[in-house]
Amino acid sequence: MNFMVYRIGDDCVVVDAGMMFPGAEHLGVDVVIPDMSFLEECGTIHGVVLTHGHEDHIGAVPYLLARHDVPVFASPFTRELIRNRLAEHASVSADCLRDLPDDRPLQLGPFAVETLPVAHSIPQARMVVLRTPFGNVVHTADFKLDPDPVDGVGLDLERVAALGREGVLLLLSDSTNADVPGFTAGEKTIAAGLDQAIAGHDGRVLVTTFSSNINRMRQLVDLARRHGRRMALVGTSIQQQAEVAGRLGLLDFPSGMRTSPQTLMDGAPDRALFLVTGTQGEPMSALARISVDKHREVRVGPGDLVLHSARRIPGNEKSIGRMIDHLLRRGARVVTAANARIHVSGHPARDELRLILQLLRPRYFIPIHGEFRQLSAHAGLAHECGMSDDAVVLIESGDVVAVNEQEIVRAGRVHVGQVFIDATLDEVDWAILRDRRRVAGDGIVVAVVAVDRENGSMNEFPEVVSRGFVPDADGAENGVMSDARDVVLRTLEDATPEERADETMLKARIQTDLKRFLRRRTQRRPLIIPVIVEL
Amino acid sequence: MNFMVYRIGDDCVVVDAGMMFPGAEHLGVDVVIPDMSFLEECGTIHGVVLTHGHEDHIGAVPYLLARHDVPVFASPFTRELIRNRLAEHASVSADCLRDLPDDRPLQLGPFAVETLPVAHSIPQARMVVLRTPFGNVVHTADFKLDPDPVDGVGLDLERVAALGREGVLLLLSDSTNADVPGFTAGEKTIAAGLDQAIAGHDGRVLVTTFSSNINRMRQLVDLARRHGRRMALVGTSIQQQAEVAGRLGLLDFPSGMRTSPQTLMDGAPDRALFLVTGTQGEPMSALARISVDKHREVRVGPGDLVLHSARRIPGNEKSIGRMIDHLLRRGARVVTAANARIHVSGHPARDELRLILQLLRPRYFIPIHGEFRQLSAHAGLAHECGMSDDAVVLIESGDVVAVNEQEIVRAGRVHVGQVFIDATLDEVDWAILRDRRRVAGDGIVVAVVAVDRENGSMNEFPEVVSRGFVPDADGAENGVMSDARDVVLRTLEDATPEERADETMLKARIQTDLKRFLRRRTQRRPLIIPVIVEL
Repeated sequence: MNFMVYRIGDDCVVVDAGMMFPGAEHLGVDVVIPDMSFLEECGTIHGVVLTHGHEDHIGAVPYLLARHDVPVFASPFTRELIRNRLAEHASVSADCLRDLPDDRPLQLGPFAVETLPVAHSIPQARMVVLRTPFGNVVHTADFKLDPDPVDGVGLDLERVAALGREGVLLLLSDSTNADVPGFTAGEKTIAAGLDQAIAGHDGRVLVTTFSSNINRMRQLVDLARRHGRRMALVGTSIQQQAEVAGRLGLLDFPSGMRTSPQTLMDGAPDRALFLVTGTQGEPMSALARISVDKHREVRVGPGDLVLHSARRIPGNEKSIGRMIDHLLRRGARVVTAANARIHVSGHPARDELRLILQLLRPRYFIPIHGEFRQLSAHAGLAHECGMSDDAVVLIESGDVVAVNEQEIVRAGRVHVGQVFIDATLDEVDWAILRDRRRVAGDGIVVAVVAVDRENGSMNEFPEVVSRGFVPDADGAENGVMSDARDVVLRTLEDATPEERADETMLKARIQTDLKRFLRRRTQRRPLIIPVIVEL
Repeated sequence: MNFMVYRIGDDCVVVDAGMMFPGAEHLGVDVVIPDMSFLEECGTIHGVVLTHGHEDHIGAVPYLLARHDVPVFASPFTRELIRNRLAEHASVSADCLRDLPDDRPLQLGPFAVETLPVAHSIPQARMVVLRTPFGNVVHTADFKLDPDPVDGVGLDLERVAALGREGVLLLLSDSTNADVPGFTAGEKTIAAGLDQAIAGHDGRVLVTTFSSNINRMRQLVDLARRHGRRMALVGTSIQQQAEVAGRLGLLDFPSGMRTSPQTLMDGAPDRALFLVTGTQGEPMSALARISVDKHREVRVGPGDLVLHSARRIPGNEKSIGRMIDHLLRRGARVVTAANARIHVSGHPARDELRLILQLLRPRYFIPIHGEFRQLSAHAGLAHECGMSDDAVVLIESGDVVAVNEQEIVRAGRVHVGQVFIDATLDEVDWAILRDRRRVAGDGIVVAVVAVDRENGSMNEFPEVVSRGFVPDADGAENGVMSDARDVVLRTLEDATPEERADETMLKARIQTDLKRFLRRRTQRRPLIIPVIVEL
């Protein structure tokens, strides 16, 4: 969850306000955002500067705006993504959204903020330069040095070199790939791999990639045209992002190319290319549902080809693997980045980071973005580039660092917990923000389900038990728990054998159904924890 | 769980009888073995042939022997590992263990069984050839074509070629790396990488590798000698396997080299090399405990070096990553197979598999060992080698295949469930075999713990709830559940802040402590499911 506060006296600027999607260990939670209560003691917040539109950089903006009336500066694509998100939050207005200029500095209190366009796996990403009375601070956020970007927008190394000559007090730079040697290849370099994978194939083609990777989509549009295929977008997020990109002139479908999934399914297989959400095998995503033949519109079978054109986020390897196995069982051929050149990272590898360090020659350095091992690898690289131990500070969430021309020192910690948000309901409202008091008030409901792998039977289960959950305002139970048990039973009955065999998918379904039932019936949102026991 | 039954009429031979370690989704379970009830209808089992000593090939042997009085044939190293395991099972005798000859066929009913020594990541692995009236069946099990193995033992390609000339009806071959191009490098090729990682380092060195990789240990002994370091083995399994290997002449420590962990900790850091269990970040393993400073004997700090000389088993990436982060936070340097050449696979890559297919020229082929996507890749390779669709059968657990000189066909399924075993207690007894009836009888206990990431506090939690668990023979509760709550409270109090922040580790501790308490107090073994909620 990227959320950086820069402060001089009582004047602050915030760079990025992200959320994260919880891992399997955060059962019952949909979204995690930073606890922003420390902002109360930060004096005046002159503005929020957003570097790009990925959820881990903008996801917390609605929750921030619900509590703080501050201007939010972002490039057009990023701004439109936030506007879509704000439309779901009735209590938050989009009036505070402002343009982030790229041709002149923006004065926010004592900070003169400049931004440089960078290449990344989403359009209109920016690197931030904060000019302060103490010197210049460069905050790269996510970027890569793609020398031949699809949309022609990349980092101007001349400007970076000029910054270095002018002097950089402090650099904060992207560590995601700091342990990967060499340079990250440019986005265009995978065109050949994608082409080769599709060439000569006469069944349907499904491609999954991250929804916001508009330049990847542009390459796929070219590919579809070359191979005489029409395209359909499957999944809400990919449709939304394509709509925004289209409106801003960042993505263009040739006339007659885009059509509905149903039309493509009804037409000739060798004329169809589906762009599908679900790169991480997320249980409710389009591709995961297609893989177990539970999708409303799209089906795959023998002769079809699925391209996984995306990174495997650590922790998701097993769910991705299971999804691929399901697709293979249906007879589809699956090509991934492991066996073809159809994906490339959006983050800079070690030699790109070295180049940035060499051009900027910062006095002080803080590696950001990445697990501790990547921050640590990036610090090692700074040492290779001649920086001393005193000049590099490794930080984790909540650490405060003080810096001026003479020194950089650790200066204590602020409280930065995690706040869990419940967002899979029909609508999203900032008021459901789930903090400590809220969970304590609505309690916990545990649904224990026993599945027999062989026949899917359930014996005497499911059991639904609760603690601290009072279904009714006057404390009466009114059969809610036994009805909840029936809801789970129905979920199990509706599940296909493949869903029953896939615990992650089954858990997600139980959670969604039970949550919806309890909310409608009791107006309460207990934390719902599905537990699957295999017998 | 590898468990293959070959059958002619009413005569059977079993090849391998493995178990698996459950993933995070099997909370409350320690070991999973195949449901072997289908063996009851298999006629006469003339013997069990074990290919090598990895748990996924031999782990179910004690449970098999508890129900079936059959001879078990294995090479000496494999046999001694099973003997150790059987010593923990009071009711099962080791009398049935037999030598697996490598110089003459073994007649088991209508099967003449021959074995060929192969290189693998454990000593004395064998490939199995079953000569039958219908033709020869080759079952490779796990192997690699290491042309220069550390112990000099590898596959004799001349014998493989002779088998091909003689004729092979059916091949079953290792698919683990079927989607990896090229050849797997030999074990000796990593000596230089290990040497380079250690050379010039003047702090302590810790190396983690799989306990049974005796040839890796031999290379580490050489390395320690070259660098003037003494060695200590940390962790039960590594000590046991080294003891067996030493007794059989497969591993030899030069005089004075091996010492206790305590002696090494007290001595000069640049004279110490620890061999440590815990390659997968398993929460109770030696290295995981060292990483959070909770190990009884070994500590790491600035100036120390940790080498991760092992594969990352899919699904374990996050726990391994977290362990590495902890080690880095303590100031240690960590080198992994991702950034140095210090590990090599024990399985054959695509071109080795191609070679085997080309030399054996089987009439029929069944890919084994691997997820469906690897089996599928191996089937694709067989097609590349000229085999027709009819000649290759993709199978999953429980599938029955019938084969003779004319055809290979699917012939239905047998019931092969999973049986869950509870094995983290003080002793292990086959009678605790946890089948459907057992879980239904002892019930389920769910411990819900809420941890505040910031301060580790617990609010009104933990809560312990149960279903189907009757603590006392006469049904009385006797305060067991509230005492259980106290046990969990104590576990939480004893945990370090780092353990509290690591949910996998915390879950494992809660489970172990609660299990032990409930068993002592109630003589019952309910399924224990720890649920951690972060607030």
